[in-house]
Amino acid sequence: MGRFREPPDPVFHALNASISFDRRLGTYDVRQSQAHVAMLAEAGILTADEAEQLRRGLDEVAAELEHGTFEFLPDDEDIHMAIERRLTEIAGPVGGKVHTARSRNDQVATDMALFVRDQATEARKRLLDLMGALADIAEAHADWPMPGYTHLQRAQPVYVSHHLLAYFWMFRRDLDRFATASCATADLPLGAGALAGVNWDTRRESVARALGFDGVVENSLDAVSNRDFVLDYLSAASICSMHLSRLGAEIVLWSSEEFGFLALGDSFTSGSSIMPQKKNPDAAELLRAKAPRVASHFNALLGVMHALPLAYNKDMQEDKEHLFDTVDTLNLCLDAATGMLRTAKFDRERLAGAAADEFLAATDIADLLVRRGVPFRESHAIVGGIVRHALEHDKQLSELTREELAGFSDNLDDEYYAVLSNGSWLESKVSEGGTASARVGEQLGRARAILEGVQP
Amino acid sequence: MGRFREPPDPVFHALNASISFDRRLGTYDVRQSQAHVAMLAEAGILTADEAEQLRRGLDEVAAELEHGTFEFLPDDEDIHMAIERRLTEIAGPVGGKVHTARSRNDQVATDMALFVRDQATEARKRLLDLMGALADIAEAHADWPMPGYTHLQRAQPVYVSHHLLAYFWMFRRDLDRFATASCATADLPLGAGALAGVNWDTRRESVARALGFDGVVENSLDAVSNRDFVLDYLSAASICSMHLSRLGAEIVLWSSEEFGFLALGDSFTSGSSIMPQKKNPDAAELLRAKAPRVASHFNALLGVMHALPLAYNKDMQEDKEHLFDTVDTLNLCLDAATGMLRTAKFDRERLAGAAADEFLAATDIADLLVRRGVPFRESHAIVGGIVRHALEHDKQLSELTREELAGFSDNLDDEYYAVLSNGSWLESKVSEGGTASARVGEQLGRARAILEGVQP
Amino acid sequence: MGRFREPPDPVFHALNASISFDRRLGTYDVRQSQAHVAMLAEAGILTADEAEQLRRGLDEVAAELEHGTFEFLPDDEDIHMAIERRLTEIAGPVGGKVHTARSRNDQVATDMALFVRDQATEARKRLLDLMGALADIAEAHADWPMPGYTHLQRAQPVYVSHHLLAYFWMFRRDLDRFATASCATADLPLGAGALAGVNWDTRRESVARALGFDGVVENSLDAVSNRDFVLDYLSAASICSMHLSRLGAEIVLWSSEEFGFLALGDSFTSGSSIMPQKKNPDAAELLRAKAPRVASHFNALLGVMHALPLAYNKDMQEDKEHLFDTVDTLNLCLDAATGMLRTAKFDRERLAGAAADEFLAATDIADLLVRRGVPFRESHAIVGGIVRHALEHDKQLSELTREELAGFSDNLDDEYYAVLSNGSWLESKVSEGGTASARVGEQLGRARAILEGVQP
Amino acid sequence: MGRFREPPDPVFHALNASISFDRRLGTYDVRQSQAHVAMLAEAGILTADEAEQLRRGLDEVAAELEHGTFEFLPDDEDIHMAIERRLTEIAGPVGGKVHTARSRNDQVATDMALFVRDQATEARKRLLDLMGALADIAEAHADWPMPGYTHLQRAQPVYVSHHLLAYFWMFRRDLDRFATASCATADLPLGAGALAGVNWDTRRESVARALGFDGVVENSLDAVSNRDFVLDYLSAASICSMHLSRLGAEIVLWSSEEFGFLALGDSFTSGSSIMPQKKNPDAAELLRAKAPRVASHFNALLGVMHALPLAYNKDMQEDKEHLFDTVDTLNLCLDAATGMLRTAKFDRERLAGAAADEFLAATDIADLLVRRGVPFRESHAIVGGIVRHALEHDKQLSELTREELAGFSDNLDDEYYAVLSNGSWLESKVSEGGTASARVGEQLGRARAILEGVQP
Repeated sequence: MGRFREPPDPVFHALNASISFDRRLGTYDVRQSQAHVAMLAEAGILTADEAEQLRRGLDEVAAELEHGTFEFLPDDEDIHMAIERRLTEIAGPVGGKVHTARSRNDQVATDMALFVRDQATEARKRLLDLMGALADIAEAHADWPMPGYTHLQRAQPVYVSHHLLAYFWMFRRDLDRFATASCATADLPLGAGALAGVNWDTRRESVARALGFDGVVENSLDAVSNRDFVLDYLSAASICSMHLSRLGAEIVLWSSEEFGFLALGDSFTSGSSIMPQKKNPDAAELLRAKAPRVASHFNALLGVMHALPLAYNKDMQEDKEHLFDTVDTLNLCLDAATGMLRTAKFDRERLAGAAADEFLAATDIADLLVRRGVPFRESHAIVGGIVRHALEHDKQLSELTREELAGFSDNLDDEYYAVLSNGSWLESKVSEGGTASARVGEQLGRARAILEGVQP
Repeated sequence: MGRFREPPDPVFHALNASISFDRRLGTYDVRQSQAHVAMLAEAGILTADEAEQLRRGLDEVAAELEHGTFEFLPDDEDIHMAIERRLTEIAGPVGGKVHTARSRNDQVATDMALFVRDQATEARKRLLDLMGALADIAEAHADWPMPGYTHLQRAQPVYVSHHLLAYFWMFRRDLDRFATASCATADLPLGAGALAGVNWDTRRESVARALGFDGVVENSLDAVSNRDFVLDYLSAASICSMHLSRLGAEIVLWSSEEFGFLALGDSFTSGSSIMPQKKNPDAAELLRAKAPRVASHFNALLGVMHALPLAYNKDMQEDKEHLFDTVDTLNLCLDAATGMLRTAKFDRERLAGAAADEFLAATDIADLLVRRGVPFRESHAIVGGIVRHALEHDKQLSELTREELAGFSDNLDDEYYAVLSNGSWLESKVSEGGTASARVGEQLGRARAILEGVQP
Repeated sequence: MGRFREPPDPVFHALNASISFDRRLGTYDVRQSQAHVAMLAEAGILTADEAEQLRRGLDEVAAELEHGTFEFLPDDEDIHMAIERRLTEIAGPVGGKVHTARSRNDQVATDMALFVRDQATEARKRLLDLMGALADIAEAHADWPMPGYTHLQRAQPVYVSHHLLAYFWMFRRDLDRFATASCATADLPLGAGALAGVNWDTRRESVARALGFDGVVENSLDAVSNRDFVLDYLSAASICSMHLSRLGAEIVLWSSEEFGFLALGDSFTSGSSIMPQKKNPDAAELLRAKAPRVASHFNALLGVMHALPLAYNKDMQEDKEHLFDTVDTLNLCLDAATGMLRTAKFDRERLAGAAADEFLAATDIADLLVRRGVPFRESHAIVGGIVRHALEHDKQLSELTREELAGFSDNLDDEYYAVLSNGSWLESKVSEGGTASARVGEQLGRARAILEGVQP
Repeated sequence: MGRFREPPDPVFHALNASISFDRRLGTYDVRQSQAHVAMLAEAGILTADEAEQLRRGLDEVAAELEHGTFEFLPDDEDIHMAIERRLTEIAGPVGGKVHTARSRNDQVATDMALFVRDQATEARKRLLDLMGALADIAEAHADWPMPGYTHLQRAQPVYVSHHLLAYFWMFRRDLDRFATASCATADLPLGAGALAGVNWDTRRESVARALGFDGVVENSLDAVSNRDFVLDYLSAASICSMHLSRLGAEIVLWSSEEFGFLALGDSFTSGSSIMPQKKNPDAAELLRAKAPRVASHFNALLGVMHALPLAYNKDMQEDKEHLFDTVDTLNLCLDAATGMLRTAKFDRERLAGAAADEFLAATDIADLLVRRGVPFRESHAIVGGIVRHALEHDKQLSELTREELAGFSDNLDDEYYAVLSNGSWLESKVSEGGTASARVGEQLGRARAILEGVQP
């Protein structure tokens, strides 16, 4: 308060203070202070005795934070000052030595890096749970046919397992994204001081090791100006949330009376205040609805960092709420997705009925002609004509007579009808990654291998 | 719970329940229930006695909400159910009649409309305070010259008053935007039921009048699907926040040692944890930093509404947190902007010194030539040459000799030096809206007239 | 070029030049130059003869632009300089006088205001076409029942007309938004000069009148710093595009085999390169897909303006591409929506079949109990129990026996079965804005009245 | 066209056709067709002769594309159909065989993956150029002091080299991000067919090898539904553009008269149409202004993918314009940043003058007290008091007398004045990553090593 004559205006305090949300970083802040103090002693900047007093004081602060007995005061501006204040109450004036050779600027960057690293692991754990659920459900519905869609039009039949595993691979990629976000926190900011380094011959590598960092940030200005690792987490979360939105949207669709492909359990649906018959897929809808929120946090933090001159600017305090809400939203959504999926009861009959739509075999008919030497583009046109003819005469493809077929091509014989007999065109998708059972089996095997091999 | 066998999963409850944030709508919810009950009695759907019991029960609920004694229970899913639950505890089974002829879908839309309408007024009040501050400060610095900038290069001098009033007009436009947002809530959603209207011959107009709406939403599906009015508020807030970010950014700039145009009061600045000399313009930085947050809320809600089929979808529950955080952020920023500005001390000498930069008169020299018949484009080139010559010879424009000038044009005589005598080119900007004192005076007059004439 | 020794680097030229896109403003630029020249003559700043030469020259430029014969040169940086260059080629050195008493800063703001004003009208015209189509189609399907949905679960039946008119009212609000955007361009920027006003006693009101503005921007700094009106247009376009995305999404859904509610015409659908049977609702999908693009333009321009100091900054050049792409996207989408809707063939049988789902009458059964004195909340629970009973016994509600019903309530008699007879619960939604035919008829009447009364 | 009776409506064609922008993928499309044809022959699906005809035809198409002689026809909907059309013109009906065992859905995903992979490399090349320029300029200004800033307030002096290298490390991280984006394209989509795999026993691994992929996408639905790799590129570009915006913003600031830290070359600045003296940092402003554009493309594509059901939907066509504009914008900005920086002339005197501000030594004075046993928090308060005293008495810190100092602490002796002698506090920042010359030297060495070791 040295150079200030007047206290903060209450409106300014309300705008400026971060304690209402950055208290969440408390344990990280204590942990880094412990490492910092140990280093200061190692480097001879603090005496062993001072360090010991600080260590014990910090232990006490940590315990208070853990047990919820840490008392925040109205004047606490942020978690760093609150902890130093409390430390000094506990340990006496030596508490004022904890801030030697550091600044809040490098301190908060370090807290945030530690937090992001942990949260990247949390996300990975939850992703693995979700991927496990998808693999289980895929396995349980390995050979259940359903229509595959493009443009939300029935396109070709696939197995339910195949469709569900598509999500497995999306989340597999998200797993990598969170690993990347974790790597983005590999270098320790602490020790950069306010922006220029500190007036002490410190041992940043030693702090880095103690806190699980691989190394130190190379440039002190960058150390306090950088929030890329938060952005990397938010970007990963944005893409992951988009994947969840697609999953949610499909569950909503499949839960409709019109599709009727599955029923969610009571425990992940809710009713209407007015319509007694309603069972609404609220969880699935919210998976969908949360994606823009997460994406907007990324967008907002990019906006905050936009055009900021070096080094630290107060604007960067905004990183926290955007990150915290994303973390909470994402973790909850991942848990809800896993829980909800595990309650889903697929309706084999409805799925099979929809998959039996003969028009879904049109490509297979075209390919039959191709095998007889008709160029694909030509065979496509022939079958298109047959489809129109069938529609206009209100017939199924298998109801067309030989005579009718002959009007389109000479190459349509018994095999035409054979192709149309239900199911044949599912097992013919034998290309790698295709929906034929053997291929889906391989795919599931690889999914299982990944689940066994990956550590969060 | 009638058609459900299983209770909600805790994860689902955590995702689904809105009570942690929608409790903020409590008083609006009670108010609309009062109007709804009165209408039900008027229409003969409730007896006078039932209505009276409900009215008294609701009064009690309102009192509990107001005094903070309303007890929320773990099973309360949202504010509507919590209030109906409490009403029934107070009034007995008749409480179950309050939900006759309505649904949560039209109910929540009504709460939100009432909330937006009030908040649009709140924003307008604060905008008027800020505009008042700008007018006052402009008046107090009516004739203080400062450099005007384009591309952050000194361009032409202006009066501080003129510069500050530019913000007045930005906020003036925001005032209109919030009025528009308020108008967007003119029609009452209540009475639309779940989506199709209700099985009762209700009197929506009567409820509308009681709650201060101009009319009723024309289409019941639209009534429960529409969140445009929230978007209108968020859009207004986004643009207003962008204006605040510009103001904040300029204050940051002007507070720098390099500019040195003003000093903020201690009560709206803060220090550094490490650098004792620092006095940082945190409030101004946060005005800047909050704009992307607000813009992202608009962006997110648009994303939530994206591609939603009619009518109500659970996704729309996301409207609340985006709106509430925007409201709190904007209101605080507006108050902080006003408070901060009122502490600013401009440095007349620094401003005047910067404004005296002779190069700022280059346009005026060019216009001098124009008055002597040289086409502007040509005179611009001549003066450009003179500027380059001066820079290369490290001279001020007024230090150039007649001989040097003669090399560029025959038309440069005593008046050239007269133009360069400090200040002359400020008062020559006599065009409407220009920086000449008379014009700024007119402008300030119009600003004052607006402040007197507008009601929030 | 006076003060510059070196020409622009090609990379800089590529980044800096706006001519590739701002040429679109050419006719506006000429028009404002005409008004500017006329004013300069009126104010005695140009002679009548000079003004006449410029007027004729500008006419020629306009003709070249209109006929596509205007030749742009590699060195043309922007449309303003290109036109002045060409004008000078045509009219001789007097062309250099056109830029007297103005700057590109106020000039481009004026072009943009004129462009936005015109485009707001364009959007309104197209909205009226779309609203007309919706009204026509609603009228043609006035009494066709379909299920209304909440949470994409069948909720209560509505008429197709009622559902379509919900979109009418959304676009009705957009109509107002574009009117607001148009109003935001009411004040003329021209005459503000670079930022401070000009050294001439100009007549801005006269230019304003000539160009159709209501007045002049009050503050010259604001005049050249302001792009709010572009943001207002983009905000309106964002919300309108979101509405289109909802319409598109519903058309996609309804075109699916599962819903089967309508078939789009061949002229607004396309096929698959591989699957001959496919008829994909590409137009509807693109209506959906374009909304985030438009929203992002708004978001981006807010980001561009973020924290910009006054007055003009080059960043503001980014306004153009964001606006132009939005204009083109929106106009095309509005036209496509209208065209596509007019090809849609609704399937009366499928719609009616879905609407006949007895569970949609659950609210009506509950209301039946209410009429007999059971509080709504209680009746809701009773009917919920009945629904669960029916589902568990795989029965329709009308298949439940008197005995089964008696287990739930004494109040369920013949009227229970009467309510369940198809259609009765559609006409009972008699509240204002409800789906009962009489109400929809009133609504359509008001829609028609609006279409007749509004001018784009 | 088989099943369609009517041609596309012109409005639909305008909305639907992608040929105006996806033609940019032409060479990738031919390349993948070559690999596809070779595989089809290898697998016995085409005869050697057919394959040879197709190969030659595709070569011809490639040549036409390269030489700009490929003629697009009005009916060409997209690049894939245009190429197949042209191939068939050249090679005859066998051209219709090229589309055997694939779909546009997997084809376009493959084109996009190839394009993204190349563009990630392009970005990396340009980043290396920029990093090289930063290293060069840092080296040339190794020991030039300047003020370091936090909150845009002078904080502590740093070397220009140190400040510039902070950007080096930002772009270093971007290098990794583009490498990650490149890795995201490691798996080949082609061969997934429309969504379910194809009716042929293809050899996707073989195609993958031919086109430089590491493997094949595991799941055919995912192959055609996935645009994650585009998002990964856009995310990398968003963060990189944000870094550029910070660099641009600082250059703008430093180019101002008030800072005066550097002058850009004429070749990367431009003038004013009205003010002859102006030399505006347009390039730097545009670096700043483009960041929101890029970020919005990421945001928009996330919005496009939001809630899309599997597998391919037309919405995904929107990926292209968002990507292409980002690629062009980013590449140009990176080139411009490099070019602009190389023209910058730093002003040693101005920088040094600003860095000599004695208040920047306040931390060093505080640390002096710490060395004498005063806890840092206490010493911070003491120095804060001294600063206030100096400001109130309008003195420099070095002008304070012993007596004045004694009023604050007993520990302030000659060393106080020694610390204040210019420069001493720069070299004392000896911590790893600090601004002391030796540390900056190490940092530059590591930067050089990276530049030598990395391949784009």
